[in-house]
Amino acid sequence: MRVSRLMLVTLRDDPAEAEILSHKLLLRAGYIRRLGSGIYAYLPLLWRVLQKVKAIVRQEMEATGALETLLPQLQPAELWQRSGRWSGYTAGEGIMFHLEDRQGRELGLGPTHEEVVTVLAADLLRSYRQLPVHLYQIQTKFRDEIRPRFGLMRGREFIMKDGYSFHADEACLRRTYGAMDQAYSRIFRRCGLRAVAVEADSGAIGGSASQEFMVTAEAGEDLILSSPDGRYAANQERASALAPEPRPLIGGPRLAGAGELLSTPGQGTIEALVQAHDVDASQILKVLLLLARFDDGAELPLLVSLRGDQQLNSVKLANVVSASCSPSHGTLLEIVPLSEEAVAREGLAPLPFGYLGPDLADACLAGARRWTPAFLRLADATAAELDAFVCGANQLDQHRLGAAWGALCPRPEALDLRAAQPGDRCRHDPGQCLEASRGIEVGHIFQLGRRYATALGATVSTECGSEEALWMGCYGIGVSRLAQAAVEQHHDASGICWPTAIAPFEVIVVVANTGEPLQLALGERLYAELTAAGAETLLDDRSERAGVKFKDADLIGIPWRVVVGRGAADGQVELVQRAGSQRTDLAADGLLDHLLPRLTAERRGLPAA
Amino acid sequence: MRVSRLMLVTLRDDPAEAEILSHKLLLRAGYIRRLGSGIYAYLPLLWRVLQKVKAIVRQEMEATGALETLLPQLQPAELWQRSGRWSGYTAGEGIMFHLEDRQGRELGLGPTHEEVVTVLAADLLRSYRQLPVHLYQIQTKFRDEIRPRFGLMRGREFIMKDGYSFHADEACLRRTYGAMDQAYSRIFRRCGLRAVAVEADSGAIGGSASQEFMVTAEAGEDLILSSPDGRYAANQERASALAPEPRPLIGGPRLAGAGELLSTPGQGTIEALVQAHDVDASQILKVLLLLARFDDGAELPLLVSLRGDQQLNSVKLANVVSASCSPSHGTLLEIVPLSEEAVAREGLAPLPFGYLGPDLADACLAGARRWTPAFLRLADATAAELDAFVCGANQLDQHRLGAAWGALCPRPEALDLRAAQPGDRCRHDPGQCLEASRGIEVGHIFQLGRRYATALGATVSTECGSEEALWMGCYGIGVSRLAQAAVEQHHDASGICWPTAIAPFEVIVVVANTGEPLQLALGERLYAELTAAGAETLLDDRSERAGVKFKDADLIGIPWRVVVGRGAADGQVELVQRAGSQRTDLAADGLLDHLLPRLTAERRGLPAA
Repeated sequence: MRVSRLMLVTLRDDPAEAEILSHKLLLRAGYIRRLGSGIYAYLPLLWRVLQKVKAIVRQEMEATGALETLLPQLQPAELWQRSGRWSGYTAGEGIMFHLEDRQGRELGLGPTHEEVVTVLAADLLRSYRQLPVHLYQIQTKFRDEIRPRFGLMRGREFIMKDGYSFHADEACLRRTYGAMDQAYSRIFRRCGLRAVAVEADSGAIGGSASQEFMVTAEAGEDLILSSPDGRYAANQERASALAPEPRPLIGGPRLAGAGELLSTPGQGTIEALVQAHDVDASQILKVLLLLARFDDGAELPLLVSLRGDQQLNSVKLANVVSASCSPSHGTLLEIVPLSEEAVAREGLAPLPFGYLGPDLADACLAGARRWTPAFLRLADATAAELDAFVCGANQLDQHRLGAAWGALCPRPEALDLRAAQPGDRCRHDPGQCLEASRGIEVGHIFQLGRRYATALGATVSTECGSEEALWMGCYGIGVSRLAQAAVEQHHDASGICWPTAIAPFEVIVVVANTGEPLQLALGERLYAELTAAGAETLLDDRSERAGVKFKDADLIGIPWRVVVGRGAADGQVELVQRAGSQRTDLAADGLLDHLLPRLTAERRGLPAA
Repeated sequence: MRVSRLMLVTLRDDPAEAEILSHKLLLRAGYIRRLGSGIYAYLPLLWRVLQKVKAIVRQEMEATGALETLLPQLQPAELWQRSGRWSGYTAGEGIMFHLEDRQGRELGLGPTHEEVVTVLAADLLRSYRQLPVHLYQIQTKFRDEIRPRFGLMRGREFIMKDGYSFHADEACLRRTYGAMDQAYSRIFRRCGLRAVAVEADSGAIGGSASQEFMVTAEAGEDLILSSPDGRYAANQERASALAPEPRPLIGGPRLAGAGELLSTPGQGTIEALVQAHDVDASQILKVLLLLARFDDGAELPLLVSLRGDQQLNSVKLANVVSASCSPSHGTLLEIVPLSEEAVAREGLAPLPFGYLGPDLADACLAGARRWTPAFLRLADATAAELDAFVCGANQLDQHRLGAAWGALCPRPEALDLRAAQPGDRCRHDPGQCLEASRGIEVGHIFQLGRRYATALGATVSTECGSEEALWMGCYGIGVSRLAQAAVEQHHDASGICWPTAIAPFEVIVVVANTGEPLQLALGERLYAELTAAGAETLLDDRSERAGVKFKDADLIGIPWRVVVGRGAADGQVELVQRAGSQRTDLAADGLLDHLLPRLTAERRGLPAA
């Protein structure tokens, strides 16, 4: 391909719309253009990168026996209603674009395909003899993101590989899940990415176990917590660790655990209490009020107790609330903090926010318009395990000092609701402390169990003749996000340094002075020879200055540059490796012998870490 | 690939949902499943067919220098508002799915990409030096069809190849248009399709010239009219021909062209008039009243005159009305017949439908609530050229006999509004008559001119330094429709007969009795050898009866079947060619030498017609 025919437009300055480096570079180097919030055109150079990523994904999927298919992007609402996910995905913080067709029927734009594929499985799979089977597709997906940003990292339209496996039993599901774990590691390695597998929350997809693959990068949106010995790594959403020990409260419980009243005027925050009194944040019991909204319209007030030095993990909270309430109220739509305004709108007397104790009586909810008039009371282990603590006295400007469970109210069940932090001790080895790094999620694999198969009636006849619901797994890779993640890991001050396996072209032949017939002729010859030898080659035949062409070649990040300049007269060219900028002068006649073996090795991707 | 791992489910009976043969076969052979109205899952076998079609499309597009890209499916309404197409595509009979995102911004789901690509061109193309350039993509498109039907033929979600070319002048556009014409012919030929190019209406896409590619098939939705000499072929929507000569009205004009009143009680149709009086349909002037609705809210009554033996071509009418009114009223949304109810709703006195004459006065519209109070009067040439005719007298049960233009009202401009018919004389040679055939539209190419570039500000600097709007062409292929069209052209009573170039697999090795170790071993060996030699091979390793496996192989339509049966003991196999069912017994050892050269030839596709 000739650069003059490539519709290439490079930008010198960083575009204002971009925040992170990979986004800036993809815009500057002419890989993408924004058409709307979170919506991008993939220009020809990026398209080639995506095709290479897809080819690697396909090879590794096929090697595991998975079958490629293509499922509809438009999905009838009725399928999602049967699985119970329609309202969760469209109402509240739901991220599914949805619309009505000309007949007034509701359709969703697929962000994922569990429902569609399960309905297909119900139709096509009849006997255990057909199992296991694994269908996958590479397709554009849609999410009505609250904050689309970072280019392809969090778009509203993006390319995914998603696969769904079906099994007669859980052991078989686990084997395929294990095989996908390995296939994913190979895929990311072959794409030239340093990726780590971490424990993850299963979120709205559900299921019993899930694992994310993170490309490590400073710009990553996810916080990874991992142990120095490498035996534990998890997304902070999911991570569990031992909290620091609390400082014992001097004097322990007072007044038999009812606590002494402590005047705390204007000290409605942990920080104010700690400053004004001789207490540590770990001695304070923090009480949060929140409201959970459900699909059936129920609005349930939550009273959550945490140790004062700990932060709530909202994902863990949502999982606990879902598990306890969804059987009766349907999908949990959202959890929001309770505000003074909301209490007033509900027709209730004001609550002493900032001075709440875990014994806040349900009576304060009596007469509520919509809310269930009793709190769902939950406590993190850090709170449940305190022997004596400071807590709000449920009246303004008053706390209790030396309160204790039992006297105040029953000691609650110890749940894991806290956000694990860097520095926390690891559960598997308290001698090690969690370390933080940032990552870009490029893959996620799930053991779904039988949830979808049960809801959508996907059963097969077993060896003993009974009908049983299928076991399912699902496996996703963010293909377009992966391409940008590669840029985040592979760039320098001059531009992108694509790993050869996913580079849009492998070699660029730059004719320094196209007005010089000798240079032009040699450039054309090498371009033709390289192309004939199977090297994906660009010829920069533009009549620009050599410096401009070198800058563009660096910016777009072609792994190898062949410079045909003054040395052409003596049959000499310069070979520059993009990553590291190593330069070699060599005879044009020896170029192919020198370069082709290197390309062959590089196409295979990075060796195992 | 082993059939046992293919998730293959074939059906013996024709599914009730399917009307045409190709649709039935794709369902029965396990290629597609319906998920909703006009929405299909493409199962692994069809996916392989589509991948082959796409590979052929890509090769031929690349050979012309076109660049592959991927544009967003979600398109901001604002772009379509700038081109003036938003309301035409979303209101009235509009076929664009559209929705609001969480910020309340309107988005369309792309049925086509002129707006998006033109905005990109405006950004990326600055100089004539970058031209010509041609961007194409292969992508799922959406249309909210009024009547989705025939499986993949008229779906609401389907795969298209769409390309857009940009030029500095019209001559360059014409050259690329010509190159696309040839590339399209090669693509269809390589896919094994008999396709013809026909003149077409440009429809909502617009532009000065367009041509459709039709796969000829009885089940086709389009009527093609063509001349026996092959020099003229057009979609009926577009076709123009010479109408039969009218029979002169005996006595000619009467009462100086005002006509004599003829009592015609209850004779409000052409048929009734012809039956009751000694007149021919070609002597009657038919007057149709219609209503055109525009984007700006205008509702314009139309009075259309046609000769009584002719039919109105609604596409031609819409083009004429658009051309004459869109500059002042914006997009034409729809044209509907005027009914008695509509006249009453408008607060007007009843009109004598069935007895209308071309001199119907605008006064009958005075006091209309929304309608423009004057007719847009249009006449087909067959009507405009009549010297004396019978027409309605604008009062119930009365016609005029021997009316004539001039006396009654001025002779109108002769337009082409009639539907051409089989048997019509050709314009290029009145000695030939148009013949009818049916076709499935699989491609459409357009010379768009500068309409989109002007509306969306896509200009380049010319060689002389001025800024000028780009010239554009656009070129589409219905990829998923093409796959079904191939089935419509290539099947027999037993099932599909795929052309090898787009078959999901090229060879199927059927082990007649898998319980017979010799047969199984030979089947496995041939499967391995064929696969190693690059033949895409299926091994039917299922423990079904041989007859079931043969039936399935015929139904799914693999071009070559190798039967490993009793002859295995003597190293003999049977080779069956699917199309034509020719059988050859041969030594297993000679199979590859016999088959591979045939496959190589067949992969290239059909020779030129």
